Amino acid sequence: MTEFISSPANKLIKEVASLHNKKYRDNLGKFLAEGVRLVEECAISGWPIEFCLYTESAASHDRTLRLIKKLAAADCQMIVVPESVYNKISDTEQPQGIMAVLKKRRYAIEDMMSAAGNKLPLLVILDGIQDPGNVGTIIRTADAAGCTGVIALKGSADVYAGKTVRAAMGSLFHLPIVEGVSAAELVTILNKFQINLLATGLQKKSVLYYQANFNRPVCIILGNEGQGVSKEMLEAADACLNIPLAGQAESLNVSVAAGIILYEAIRQRATL
Amino acid sequence: MTEFISSPANKLIKEVASLHNKKYRDNLGKFLAEGVRLVEECAISGWPIEFCLYTESAASHDRTLRLIKKLAAADCQMIVVPESVYNKISDTEQPQGIMAVLKKRRYAIEDMMSAAGNKLPLLVILDGIQDPGNVGTIIRTADAAGCTGVIALKGSADVYAGKTVRAAMGSLFHLPIVEGVSAAELVTILNKFQINLLATGLQKKSVLYYQANFNRPVCIILGNEGQGVSKEMLEAADACLNIPLAGQAESLNVSVAAGIILYEAIRQRATL
Repeated sequence: MTEFISSPANKLIKEVASLHNKKYRDNLGKFLAEGVRLVEECAISGWPIEFCLYTESAASHDRTLRLIKKLAAADCQMIVVPESVYNKISDTEQPQGIMAVLKKRRYAIEDMMSAAGNKLPLLVILDGIQDPGNVGTIIRTADAAGCTGVIALKGSADVYAGKTVRAAMGSLFHLPIVEGVSAAELVTILNKFQINLLATGLQKKSVLYYQANFNRPVCIILGNEGQGVSKEMLEAADACLNIPLAGQAESLNVSVAAGIILYEAIRQRATL
Repeated sequence: MTEFISSPANKLIKEVASLHNKKYRDNLGKFLAEGVRLVEECAISGWPIEFCLYTESAASHDRTLRLIKKLAAADCQMIVVPESVYNKISDTEQPQGIMAVLKKRRYAIEDMMSAAGNKLPLLVILDGIQDPGNVGTIIRTADAAGCTGVIALKGSADVYAGKTVRAAMGSLFHLPIVEGVSAAELVTILNKFQINLLATGLQKKSVLYYQANFNRPVCIILGNEGQGVSKEMLEAADACLNIPLAGQAESLNVSVAAGIILYEAIRQRATL
C-alpha cells in the first residue's frame, strides 16, 4: 500500500519530524532509521517497520528501488513525499531520500540474560556516556564482539537518537538493548545473575585489563567521556580495569577503550 | 605583545579563516588549534605558536586567562578580537573564544625511526581513511599506545583539519606524524628498515590478529572506511590481520580496530 503525502502539515509527517526529539521518541516508543543501508539492515533483521517514507528520486536508484519493492511486498506501509518535505524532516547532511519509522523494542535485563542461553555472558553498561556517536560505535562493537547485550543507564545519551542509530550501523537491530535503568536496579539484577562487574578507569585496586579473568560472566562498565564511571557504579564494581597509557595521551576515546577490553575477553575465551 | 584587531578584513584574520581550507593549510604550512584544552596541550608540548587569538569574554574565565598569561609571558604574539569576528572564523559549534595558529612540523619517516631510538618500532599507516574524526581518534590511540608515529598516505583525510585536530585531543603535538607519502615511497623506506607490514582486513592468508607476532618491528595498515586497505598496500603487506566478528556486525569502526590491534601489540610486548 503506497500513499502520497505532499503536505508538511500531515499528521504522519509531523510525527516523523517529532521523532528527532527524545521526548517524543520516549512518549511514542518509536524512532527513525535513515538511509538505504540502515533501512536494509532493519528489513533483514526482521525488525517490524511502522512505515517507510521515501522520495521519487530516491526510488530511481536501483538499490533503493529493490529495497522499496521488498518492503512493499512484505506489506509495509509506504509513503512517497516530495523532496522538499523529505529534506525538512531529514536529520542527515546528505539525505538519501529513504527512512523508516520503527517501534522501540523493550527488553528487560532478565530477557537479555535468558536470550544468551548457554553462552558465557558478556555485557556492556553505558554509565553516563554523552556522545551519541560513541554510544552507537559501542553498540556496533558490542555486536561485533558477540556480546549478550548493552544496558544504557539513566543519564546516558539516547540509544535511539539519529546519530546513535547511524553510528551503530544496524547493530541496534541485532543486539538486545535495555535503556533507562537506574544504577541501583542494575546492580541488584546483575548480582542475582552472579555477574562480575568490571569498571574501566584508573582508580585504586585497578588491574591491567589483560590480567583480568574474562572466562566467567562479566559486564564492562564504560563511563562518561570526561568524568569516567560514576561513584555509584565504581562502588558496586568488583574490580577496575586499567588500560595502560604508554605515550602522552591522557585517555582513550571510550569506544576505543570498549573495543580493546571486549576483544581481550574474546581472545581469552577463544584461547585460554 | 597584545594587539587588538576589530576588522574581519585584516590580513591575519583572513589568514586564520583561510586555514579551514586544506589548500591554504598546505600552501602556508600552518593549521589551527581551537579551544582552551587544545591550546593548553600545545603550550605544554612546546610546539611553537605563530600567534594566539582570543576574545575579551574568553579571558574572563580563570582557566583561559591563566593560559593567555602563560603564552604572553612566553612572548607569544597575542591578538584580541571582538566576539563577532571570532565566531565568524571559528570552526566549532560552541566556540570557547581562544585559538592558536601553528606551523606544521615536517617529519621524514627516517626522522621518525631515529627518534624511536632503541624502542621496538610500532607504526600506524593511514591508507585512505576519510573521516577526520577517525583520523584524529587513531592519532590519539597511537599516542596512548606509545607508537613510533603515524604516517598518512596520500588520499587520507587531512591530519591538520579542525575536526581531526580536535579528535586527536592534543596527541597531534606529541607524536611524529608524516603526511602525503605515496604507497610506493613508503614501502621502499619501510623495507629498508625491515619493518613487518601488517594490513587489516578479511583477505586471503589473513591471521587472527592475536596470533600475529608483534614482538618485532611492525607497522599496522588501516584502510578506508568502506573499501578497506588499498590493493597496492595489500600486495606489499607481509600478512593481513583479521579481527574476528562474533555477532552480526559486518565490520568494526576503523579507530576501534586500530585500538584493538595496537593494544594487542602492547600486551604481547609487555607479557611475552
